Amino acid sequence: MIIVMDHRVGDDKIEAVLVRLERLGFQIHLSRGVERTIIGAIGERGHLIGVDLEVMPGVEKVVPILQPYKLASRTFKEEGTVIRVGNLEIGGDTIHVMAGPCAVESREQLLCAAQMVKDAGATILRGGAFKPRTSPYSFHGLEEEGLELLAEAREATGLLIVTEVMDARTLPLVARYTDILQIGARNMQNFFLLREIAKVDKPVVLKRGPSATIEEWLMAAEYIMSGGNYNVILCERGIRSFESYTRNTLDLTSVPVVKYLSHLPVIVDPSHAIGKWRFVPPMAKAALAAGADGLIVEVHPNPVEALCDGPQSLMPEKFAAMMNDLRQVAAVMGRRMP
Amino acid sequence: MIIVMDHRVGDDKIEAVLVRLERLGFQIHLSRGVERTIIGAIGERGHLIGVDLEVMPGVEKVVPILQPYKLASRTFKEEGTVIRVGNLEIGGDTIHVMAGPCAVESREQLLCAAQMVKDAGATILRGGAFKPRTSPYSFHGLEEEGLELLAEAREATGLLIVTEVMDARTLPLVARYTDILQIGARNMQNFFLLREIAKVDKPVVLKRGPSATIEEWLMAAEYIMSGGNYNVILCERGIRSFESYTRNTLDLTSVPVVKYLSHLPVIVDPSHAIGKWRFVPPMAKAALAAGADGLIVEVHPNPVEALCDGPQSLMPEKFAAMMNDLRQVAAVMGRRMP
Amino acid sequence: MIIVMDHRVGDDKIEAVLVRLERLGFQIHLSRGVERTIIGAIGERGHLIGVDLEVMPGVEKVVPILQPYKLASRTFKEEGTVIRVGNLEIGGDTIHVMAGPCAVESREQLLCAAQMVKDAGATILRGGAFKPRTSPYSFHGLEEEGLELLAEAREATGLLIVTEVMDARTLPLVARYTDILQIGARNMQNFFLLREIAKVDKPVVLKRGPSATIEEWLMAAEYIMSGGNYNVILCERGIRSFESYTRNTLDLTSVPVVKYLSHLPVIVDPSHAIGKWRFVPPMAKAALAAGADGLIVEVHPNPVEALCDGPQSLMPEKFAAMMNDLRQVAAVMGRRMP
Amino acid sequence: MIIVMDHRVGDDKIEAVLVRLERLGFQIHLSRGVERTIIGAIGERGHLIGVDLEVMPGVEKVVPILQPYKLASRTFKEEGTVIRVGNLEIGGDTIHVMAGPCAVESREQLLCAAQMVKDAGATILRGGAFKPRTSPYSFHGLEEEGLELLAEAREATGLLIVTEVMDARTLPLVARYTDILQIGARNMQNFFLLREIAKVDKPVVLKRGPSATIEEWLMAAEYIMSGGNYNVILCERGIRSFESYTRNTLDLTSVPVVKYLSHLPVIVDPSHAIGKWRFVPPMAKAALAAGADGLIVEVHPNPVEALCDGPQSLMPEKFAAMMNDLRQVAAVMGRRMP
Repeated sequence: MIIVMDHRVGDDKIEAVLVRLERLGFQIHLSRGVERTIIGAIGERGHLIGVDLEVMPGVEKVVPILQPYKLASRTFKEEGTVIRVGNLEIGGDTIHVMAGPCAVESREQLLCAAQMVKDAGATILRGGAFKPRTSPYSFHGLEEEGLELLAEAREATGLLIVTEVMDARTLPLVARYTDILQIGARNMQNFFLLREIAKVDKPVVLKRGPSATIEEWLMAAEYIMSGGNYNVILCERGIRSFESYTRNTLDLTSVPVVKYLSHLPVIVDPSHAIGKWRFVPPMAKAALAAGADGLIVEVHPNPVEALCDGPQSLMPEKFAAMMNDLRQVAAVMGRRMP
Repeated sequence: MIIVMDHRVGDDKIEAVLVRLERLGFQIHLSRGVERTIIGAIGERGHLIGVDLEVMPGVEKVVPILQPYKLASRTFKEEGTVIRVGNLEIGGDTIHVMAGPCAVESREQLLCAAQMVKDAGATILRGGAFKPRTSPYSFHGLEEEGLELLAEAREATGLLIVTEVMDARTLPLVARYTDILQIGARNMQNFFLLREIAKVDKPVVLKRGPSATIEEWLMAAEYIMSGGNYNVILCERGIRSFESYTRNTLDLTSVPVVKYLSHLPVIVDPSHAIGKWRFVPPMAKAALAAGADGLIVEVHPNPVEALCDGPQSLMPEKFAAMMNDLRQVAAVMGRRMP
Repeated sequence: MIIVMDHRVGDDKIEAVLVRLERLGFQIHLSRGVERTIIGAIGERGHLIGVDLEVMPGVEKVVPILQPYKLASRTFKEEGTVIRVGNLEIGGDTIHVMAGPCAVESREQLLCAAQMVKDAGATILRGGAFKPRTSPYSFHGLEEEGLELLAEAREATGLLIVTEVMDARTLPLVARYTDILQIGARNMQNFFLLREIAKVDKPVVLKRGPSATIEEWLMAAEYIMSGGNYNVILCERGIRSFESYTRNTLDLTSVPVVKYLSHLPVIVDPSHAIGKWRFVPPMAKAALAAGADGLIVEVHPNPVEALCDGPQSLMPEKFAAMMNDLRQVAAVMGRRMP
Repeated sequence: MIIVMDHRVGDDKIEAVLVRLERLGFQIHLSRGVERTIIGAIGERGHLIGVDLEVMPGVEKVVPILQPYKLASRTFKEEGTVIRVGNLEIGGDTIHVMAGPCAVESREQLLCAAQMVKDAGATILRGGAFKPRTSPYSFHGLEEEGLELLAEAREATGLLIVTEVMDARTLPLVARYTDILQIGARNMQNFFLLREIAKVDKPVVLKRGPSATIEEWLMAAEYIMSGGNYNVILCERGIRSFESYTRNTLDLTSVPVVKYLSHLPVIVDPSHAIGKWRFVPPMAKAALAAGADGLIVEVHPNPVEALCDGPQSLMPEKFAAMMNDLRQVAAVMGRRMP
């Protein structure tokens, strides 16, 4: 940690900071410059709990040097983490695609979607039973009935399932049904939920919050890991920027960055990031080329009307075409798809 | 709602959208232009639950016209809402300042802070008993003990208290102690929590999420109101932008905007928005000049060392000076401070 | 400057950086920690011209400590700068309001607007003769004819004039007519233009770029000052964020921040920042309360139809009402308006 | 264009807007709803020059329907544009990589870099002779001497050259030497420069501004095209967001979006977007997978010390390795590299 002291400050102010740091157990290096005096403090972040050095008179800024996360970092664990779920491995050579409808709407819809995405090569079925919605007047999901349908679709197809948990109270219920828990973007810093999920023995897909820095995202992973659950799969799903043509701005550079900073696997959700179907296939390919370990994609079995029978229902065809392209990109990246 | 159809699209695609809209109960106006065909659809948003028109072939964009919130809007209620809590009125002529430490740390700290902010003119004591922290290794608050200390400080000073509730499970506990519930910025879209708070008979300070648009913020208020709790106090606390000199970017323009769109009272939290004490007093004054109904400010009784006795502890003096300045700004705005 | 070395790096990499820094003339402090090695380098930024330490193997990050601007900083000049133009002083006790139409459209429009804003208390007339427009198909200003009309309005009213210069080639022309030059937000980093303006003996209003940090804004001022023109008036006009209800996000906190970091006067342009007339008066008041030295405001003499005669033309009335309110806010701030 | 009228407004206000629109030559559709009245106006944008409907009393918002650009749009020209320069085609089957140092520093540096990037498969040499720099104290380029060296490198290697033009005055000089002109991100809305470049018979690489929306970027292209120069190559180089780990946020989704909205070729500059060498190769691959027509990449022949002889100078090796990977990604995309 580096403390930069204001140039207009007297020696007593510098002294006060030095005394404080020493009491907190830090080793100190002082460099007096003409315009600024710089204090280097070496010690553990833990010493700083409850301490806010920036309020001390004369302190201009405090620059942290170490990353605030440990368990999630490559410093802690050099080799990439491979997470086993069912008979699949996430983060290994094989790239897995999680696909399915946004929300579980009915038995027919879900079973039809499940079969389609399985046929195209997906290995994990996604579908929301509890839906976070911006409006209180929107559809909020079938809840337990939705979970039962997901379980039935797993039975019928052999796909594993991933579904969102929105609250600590419904966590036991969701965990009973699902193979992989998902924490939505808006809940990335719901610390109560993170700590409860830490106690569950299921892998977790942790979506990046729309205004979360990479560091905050890794800190959210650290919450789960520090509570005992090491099976965290990070999921980039776009951040909020001024560009409004797409719903969010897919920050694909976060993929190689996170793989550099952390040992955890990273997947990408182009559907929620972009919000427009047309641009999902090119960005799914780009995600793999950037080094992603997998994808989570929304597939509408029949985006317009009824279920599984509309002739205009091109979406599953487009998904299958995309999967074929992805297979080739995966090969170029030295990886394979099931 | 306006649906813009791609110019490259055939009549069958336009027809399909028209049929769909009619089935959903919308009235339709069709305008065929040379480059675009535009469909105006008049009806209730409720008709659109679970419907995603943008996936229909040929639909280029869907432009909503009506605001998605009702109960929170000025259209619904013309006159400004005044919220009564204890013997105070928030949103009326009197401007109330909520002040106190970030976290409740000890009996001495809190009682000392409470007395100081009361002497300077604050009417409501703030202090965190449950603290959301980016790091799992940080101090997370005294929890119930902190709530008890807040209650004791209320007893001792006559100040009302406001404190954050982080989770639906601890809501009954927090609600038992506090006068005003606070929903933190990171929980603004924790929809489970919003729906639970809707059932509690206490006013709620609803902080704007760091990446929430004004519309999303009002939708979060709508969640609480549509569940039966109309006593929502909106709180601007800065949004995330590229500028990193301050912790967030205080979007003070949201104050007159929200007062134009909604009848709810609005307060401002300059402390969390800015993150640097030095700039809180000028921005507190600016907030009142922009039309805010109140402020919530962090006051460190002794930001550096021990409690209530450090000679260098200028902070409470600065708070008192700020309160004197605020009184003058309030007068210019035709309002008063207690 | 602090150089943080990757923990995975060998001693030879650290040695290479040390050798490099010494050759560049820096004094060095080395702190070897368990997880990171930190190199403190004290010396002049000038030593780093053309050097990019971050590409050296093993360098994780380079943290600059000193501000990159000198002439614009409070470190260089403690007391606030007061800029004299005509018989006015900007940055002193008196708050000046620059007002007028967006673009000079005709003689009648401009003279009418000038008289109105003068009557309401403005001291400087604004109006664009050269207009930067997002679309090539929009009106680009009357150019020299517009400048002549501005000069005529000055003659008629005694107001000083401020107008935008868009390009180094038209700078001599614009400088011949205007009292104050304005650099638009999109040109804040047009370095050729900055260097040319540095040679002109006229005060400059330097608008903050929509994606410029405070530091970059001060660096743009430094360009002008380092070329010899010390009369720079900074102008906050909103930054780009995800919020789209207003055109930009007025970052009013930049006012006290810039006054802390720099000795230059700061004014605020609420009109361009917000883009909606309704919210200009409250934010103008907030700007003064935050400590601004002045304002620049768009006034439409008749925003709807003809010039100076529409009965529905409330705008100049609203401007006059705003000026009355501002006078009171100025008084509270210990300042005055003419 | 859709005009939404405030629900609190009288019929006279609606009438005034209708009269105004008719005088301007628009055809009108009126839909009176319970909460809002909506006016649809069909006509040419050109009718709106100098008109600001949003200031009319009662107008709540104006929603444009048509894209404001014409020449740059797919509506105007369905098939993708292929730009010929020398014996190369940009936007066709072949993907071209522009590579070279940030700035031309010396004859040795440039010739060495040129040979290296050519050997690795680049076809166009980049290098700055005029450098926009945030600080007035930084190196600003060798100017004409730099241009001569670029020409010499072209002679020696057969590579074409691309270099930035910063100002209308130096445009004739730069245009005399270079094959492709580059407009830097900070100049994307330097409208004087855009209009001058429109008159030059050379292809232009138009970088996206760091806070430019896709629409504004296409409008900048429209400036150049409407002035007569149709050979515009769009270049995504990152936008400004709150994430500060990378210099900017590479918005790779803009690639398929722009290819959908426009017929112009699109290339990507991962170097400036990211600011960290380590992450350039994965994002270059991702760019091709997203559909980019080419890349522009910074290559440091010897990032650390002297020229062409440092043993630790791995960078050109890394560039060559990246080019090999890119060849495979190009093949998967059905394209080729020279």
